[in-house]
Amino acid sequence: MESVDVPVGLLGYGTVGSAVDRLLTEGADEIERATGHRLRVVRALVREPARERAFRPADGVLTTDFAAIRDDASIALVAEVTGGLEPTGTRVLELLGAGKPVVTANKQLVARRGAELFAAATAAGVQLRFEASVCAAIPVIKVLRESLVASNVHRVLGIVNGTTNFMLTQMEEGLAYAEALSEAQRLGYAEADPTEDVTGADAAAKMAILATVAFGSRVVFEEVDYAGIDTLTPDQVAAARRLALKPRLIGSATLVDGSLDVRVRPSLVDAGHPLAAVTGAFNAVMLQGDAIREITLEGPGAGGLETASAVVADLVSIVGTAGTGFLHDEPAWRVLERLPGGELRSPFYLHLEVADRPGVLARVTERLAAHELSVARLIQDQGGEGAVLHVVLHEAAEGAVLAVLAEIGELEESHSRPSALPVVSDRGVAGMGWA
Amino acid sequence: MESVDVPVGLLGYGTVGSAVDRLLTEGADEIERATGHRLRVVRALVREPARERAFRPADGVLTTDFAAIRDDASIALVAEVTGGLEPTGTRVLELLGAGKPVVTANKQLVARRGAELFAAATAAGVQLRFEASVCAAIPVIKVLRESLVASNVHRVLGIVNGTTNFMLTQMEEGLAYAEALSEAQRLGYAEADPTEDVTGADAAAKMAILATVAFGSRVVFEEVDYAGIDTLTPDQVAAARRLALKPRLIGSATLVDGSLDVRVRPSLVDAGHPLAAVTGAFNAVMLQGDAIREITLEGPGAGGLETASAVVADLVSIVGTAGTGFLHDEPAWRVLERLPGGELRSPFYLHLEVADRPGVLARVTERLAAHELSVARLIQDQGGEGAVLHVVLHEAAEGAVLAVLAEIGELEESHSRPSALPVVSDRGVAGMGWA
Repeated sequence: MESVDVPVGLLGYGTVGSAVDRLLTEGADEIERATGHRLRVVRALVREPARERAFRPADGVLTTDFAAIRDDASIALVAEVTGGLEPTGTRVLELLGAGKPVVTANKQLVARRGAELFAAATAAGVQLRFEASVCAAIPVIKVLRESLVASNVHRVLGIVNGTTNFMLTQMEEGLAYAEALSEAQRLGYAEADPTEDVTGADAAAKMAILATVAFGSRVVFEEVDYAGIDTLTPDQVAAARRLALKPRLIGSATLVDGSLDVRVRPSLVDAGHPLAAVTGAFNAVMLQGDAIREITLEGPGAGGLETASAVVADLVSIVGTAGTGFLHDEPAWRVLERLPGGELRSPFYLHLEVADRPGVLARVTERLAAHELSVARLIQDQGGEGAVLHVVLHEAAEGAVLAVLAEIGELEESHSRPSALPVVSDRGVAGMGWA
Repeated sequence: MESVDVPVGLLGYGTVGSAVDRLLTEGADEIERATGHRLRVVRALVREPARERAFRPADGVLTTDFAAIRDDASIALVAEVTGGLEPTGTRVLELLGAGKPVVTANKQLVARRGAELFAAATAAGVQLRFEASVCAAIPVIKVLRESLVASNVHRVLGIVNGTTNFMLTQMEEGLAYAEALSEAQRLGYAEADPTEDVTGADAAAKMAILATVAFGSRVVFEEVDYAGIDTLTPDQVAAARRLALKPRLIGSATLVDGSLDVRVRPSLVDAGHPLAAVTGAFNAVMLQGDAIREITLEGPGAGGLETASAVVADLVSIVGTAGTGFLHDEPAWRVLERLPGGELRSPFYLHLEVADRPGVLARVTERLAAHELSVARLIQDQGGEGAVLHVVLHEAAEGAVLAVLAEIGELEESHSRPSALPVVSDRGVAGMGWA
């Protein structure tokens, strides 16, 4: 088999970019053995060529001139590992327009401008791949696109933000939110400004991409209904421990009778559920479908080398399938209705602080019954000045749960604003031995 | 995008074959939307065309004449879902020779005759895919071949036999081996003759395939050193409970300084390890490599529809990449040395039944020290007529452990034959809070 030389361009040569160069350099023989192609970084766009790098590029690779990549006909492929929406988006469009396949690790770009970018790729007849934009080295995009094409995936459930999963694991062990955040920052899991992570925005962008691929229907970041762990109260974390449930930030993309729901919520996960076993900064995505039941992929969801591994996999896949249009034509995307927000059903946990006197439990359960909400489990604990009711409901529509919370909050016996969290259990609460 | 009609032939129309037809029929629009191709089963080889089938094939599909598939130039692809080595192997060779790409779900065929089959595919310039031969719908072959090509995977750890994992989960909860086996048979997880499963032979065939793909070096079934759960004693199962470890049948493929070891062993898994969370008839495969740390794929490892899902994914991948040779040329396989059996290192659990009198513990620990075996944890329990020593050793070579077991067995204070099981913990026993 004759070796084919494949010159690669990079936009960016930071943590991920230098790791891509390292993997392509150190893995060159292995890649050539497996594919017959020798991939080699020949040019990388940077702002400061003189800066020290984690991996030393070959002489003359670093450039500050984007045109030196775009206009170099010898460059066969480009990986975009800079991040940000602009000028990155414009540059990716120009590269595609110049006939160069592009691999991107940029979740914001794919989640917000995917339609435009993929249309440009199709118009130019080249591939745009984005495995690294979701969960780093975990190959969930390839699996969804290529392995599960006829499996009728109807739900994707994921822990797609490692920072907050690390924090929740710490909080399970007793740390307060602020302590868990400092610890995450100290270990480099959280940025100085953790807003994207703790508000759920980062997870929402990833869920938009996963929903788009899983259901073949465009979902953009702005459509994802998200709440983050910054909304989780110490009471809810303590309640999780009381009920032997695990607090997790869960992204879900669900197809219900042809309508789509994509959301991110702090949730309580059944201890026997595969997502409960995901601890620390790891990510996991569970795919549920008729023909596969459920497949879970777990691994590190971040890291320079891990992200670079996904970029390299995409580069190799493009080299291998160039010209076939394999799963990379602009397909006839489905347009799916959106499920009205309140209609998504799941089990719920309710946290109610009420006066500790006769008749209160009756008034609460009467309200639940009026909304046809069925109780799977109820624990009453002594609170400071009253009682705490931990209520786990069988599967119910979120709208009905929010309505009953408002009514219970208005009871004079309510001591604080009642709260609800979705419960994740694939077998329903009955399967948790509670019914 | 114009639709391309792709006539598919099947060898076999049993549980898996009829499910392939069902998925291709019911998923035809979805596959066409994603790929532009319309796959359709046009002929299926069976022994008894009149038999009732789980999915009703189109008129004229069933045939008893193999040549009607092999010699029909209109059939673009064939899926082999009959099982067995012969006449299946000869037929697959004839199909490849006739220029037809083949997808097989047959682990025995791939694990025993892979080299011959892949050479024939390469000679004919067509693809031979085998995702369904390992862990049904879990796409571990595609992930290893296409996503992790430059990730330097150095270890594959797997629970690749659902029947025995179901039995072990039952035994954890107190059932005896025979009871767990009857329960597995009653639920259809185990065959009437469970030999392949309980001896570890089934897992060994799958590990041969996984090792071959992970390391790019041919490993055949006959080379895999395997022991099954039929060698696990009730004492060892009870000890697992005593130590809060999980008994699991673990297949491992390990690259140690360029030498290869592939084995299957009943093992004790650290409760915090991802493989400890795999319960019931599920399978999971953990891939460890420099660039990915560890990625775990979990899902149902058997089932007609699940296996058919993997067959369909391979058919679609062949259609998509036909003519590119993408990762399906006969690559320059590496020839790797085999690690001498005794040299593979891991933590070990030792089960020792000894006389309960002064000096015994000293004699045992002296023997361990003489082999430079370091104790991570030791528990002495009262046995029937003596003491039971539960010893967990830090990582050690299997050869040294077997040597010390033989020596301890010869001590006059030994009441029974001492036994050892490997312990699986990715952070070593120190990470288990024992050191």
